[in-house]
Amino acid sequence: MQSLIEEQILKYLGGGSSNVEAEVSLEALDDAAVIHNIVLKSDSHTVKPLFFPGGDIGRLSIAGTVNDIANVGGEPIALASGFVIEEGFEMYKFETILKSMQEACKEAGVSVITGDTKVVETGALDEFIINTSGIGKRGDALDRNIAEVKKYREFKSNWLVDSNIKEGDKIILSGTIGDHGTAILSSRRGYDFSVKSDVAPLNKLHHKLLEVGGIVKIKDPTRGGLSNVLYEWSKKSKVGIVVKQEKIPIHANVVEACEILGINPLHTGNEGKLVIAVIPQKAEEVLTALRETKEGKDAEIIGEAAKIFGNHVLLDKGGVEGRVVLQAPSTDPVTRVC
Amino acid sequence: MQSLIEEQILKYLGGGSSNVEAEVSLEALDDAAVIHNIVLKSDSHTVKPLFFPGGDIGRLSIAGTVNDIANVGGEPIALASGFVIEEGFEMYKFETILKSMQEACKEAGVSVITGDTKVVETGALDEFIINTSGIGKRGDALDRNIAEVKKYREFKSNWLVDSNIKEGDKIILSGTIGDHGTAILSSRRGYDFSVKSDVAPLNKLHHKLLEVGGIVKIKDPTRGGLSNVLYEWSKKSKVGIVVKQEKIPIHANVVEACEILGINPLHTGNEGKLVIAVIPQKAEEVLTALRETKEGKDAEIIGEAAKIFGNHVLLDKGGVEGRVVLQAPSTDPVTRVC
Repeated sequence: MQSLIEEQILKYLGGGSSNVEAEVSLEALDDAAVIHNIVLKSDSHTVKPLFFPGGDIGRLSIAGTVNDIANVGGEPIALASGFVIEEGFEMYKFETILKSMQEACKEAGVSVITGDTKVVETGALDEFIINTSGIGKRGDALDRNIAEVKKYREFKSNWLVDSNIKEGDKIILSGTIGDHGTAILSSRRGYDFSVKSDVAPLNKLHHKLLEVGGIVKIKDPTRGGLSNVLYEWSKKSKVGIVVKQEKIPIHANVVEACEILGINPLHTGNEGKLVIAVIPQKAEEVLTALRETKEGKDAEIIGEAAKIFGNHVLLDKGGVEGRVVLQAPSTDPVTRVC
Repeated sequence: MQSLIEEQILKYLGGGSSNVEAEVSLEALDDAAVIHNIVLKSDSHTVKPLFFPGGDIGRLSIAGTVNDIANVGGEPIALASGFVIEEGFEMYKFETILKSMQEACKEAGVSVITGDTKVVETGALDEFIINTSGIGKRGDALDRNIAEVKKYREFKSNWLVDSNIKEGDKIILSGTIGDHGTAILSSRRGYDFSVKSDVAPLNKLHHKLLEVGGIVKIKDPTRGGLSNVLYEWSKKSKVGIVVKQEKIPIHANVVEACEILGINPLHTGNEGKLVIAVIPQKAEEVLTALRETKEGKDAEIIGEAAKIFGNHVLLDKGGVEGRVVLQAPSTDPVTRVC
């Protein structure tokens, strides 16, 4: 369904005049677009429930857009919020959401500078939707990072895009996976596994990583989870990827919750983690920098891009199981995860 | 309701760090925001029905954002589209909407360069929502226009904002009013008044007007109609405004339809018209330029900003009725008009 929609969108909206000028265009299907050195991103949020352990739709709407702008190497400047509200939606809920947005904006160091609100009749919408768009600029840290990469290997892009990865690049995961998706689904089903969403704006972490240097791409494993990130990279960079299962950080109660809920933690969304592709010469340095931060204290080098027939993504399960092809994500096992 | 929401949004999201840097900030509640010379706009579209005489939600979503960027003096560069789709929505409808977007983009000379799609379960949404965000740049035509204004009077803003209007400025309307709102409501009720929506991207018209010069503000009378534009200007510019009823262009069948539908054409949305505030010295020249265009052939100078006690907006009905205070819009009489 999702891919059918994307095909249709590209068929009609791809290749337009601005797309040709864009440095990162619609066709790239990357985290954000870039034109005239301005990073542009738009994201609609339909998460259900609106309030979940560890966050709410307000925090999510800021974090999601800020992170996507930073994923391509941009420094978020400002945001625009579009609210669609069902008539009868309680004002205290709206205020709680706005407060969360305000806090997340402070953490990220950005502001909402414009917006739009539409109220629709009761029944026309399940409560509340936020679209957050945003713009980012090119910062010096990105230029220094790219210069560092170029000391060691060829690097053609001016931005951090999915097609930048080459054989030998290390794959780092900034922390535990599955927390957000598990929190959403368990909250919806009324279970309490003591799992909290990791939703957070991470642009300051991105900045710190760029200052270390050697980064070729950063991506947050949201819809479709870690598996989706690895498949996107493998497809667009035309490389194989191998990750070691034992290196992937995950909380014990997330493992347990996923078993009970019947979902795969490698396939479900996170909102406060980064997957980082880095040249091997800088991998340990990036790992050390990550572990110094609150958000990155559990970081691990989980694998690398490698020469694999058919450019598959392999999961090394260790022991007698060995390497298996990681299941490709069709969609996130948790609906309305973000 | 709408104003309560805006107050809450300003309370929590106003005054953030980027808002302070913004040249046109959230607090301005203008057509779009401006930061670092980049114009930013976001607009969610919930129009019902999705397809109506003269257009559809796709065309509307492009025109709305392009026009708002141009209203503050920006030249639209690129757009981002966020779709939220109810599961089961027919693919041929989606394709028709995408085709309309493509056409409107061509007319405007912009492209969608990034996007996002969320599918929600049946019943969680009345079919389909589009959010369109966009960015614009500062063009030379705006600088030349402002230089022209400054030949005749003081002008403090760098952009075309609602607070720019001064006593004596002429108010021009580019064409007939009430077409869009009447088309939407009659279509929803199953009447046929042969009224078509005027929905169109007008940024090329904005550009032409700036090339004539002397423009202090342009605004499209969307939600809340012409009345809303005049009230916004009066409030933010702290001036009175007088418009002559007999000068306001309106189609005879719109007058008739509005009577039957029980709505006021001065209060309902248009999507292809401009209200232009211009210094008196350039008003006739701007009018002539407008009338040379297809979109502006019915243009009229409908009134002017004037010294009026309490800065009221007056409607001059002519004859024995004389000048009356124009009713302030609370909300658009047509729900889900855009």
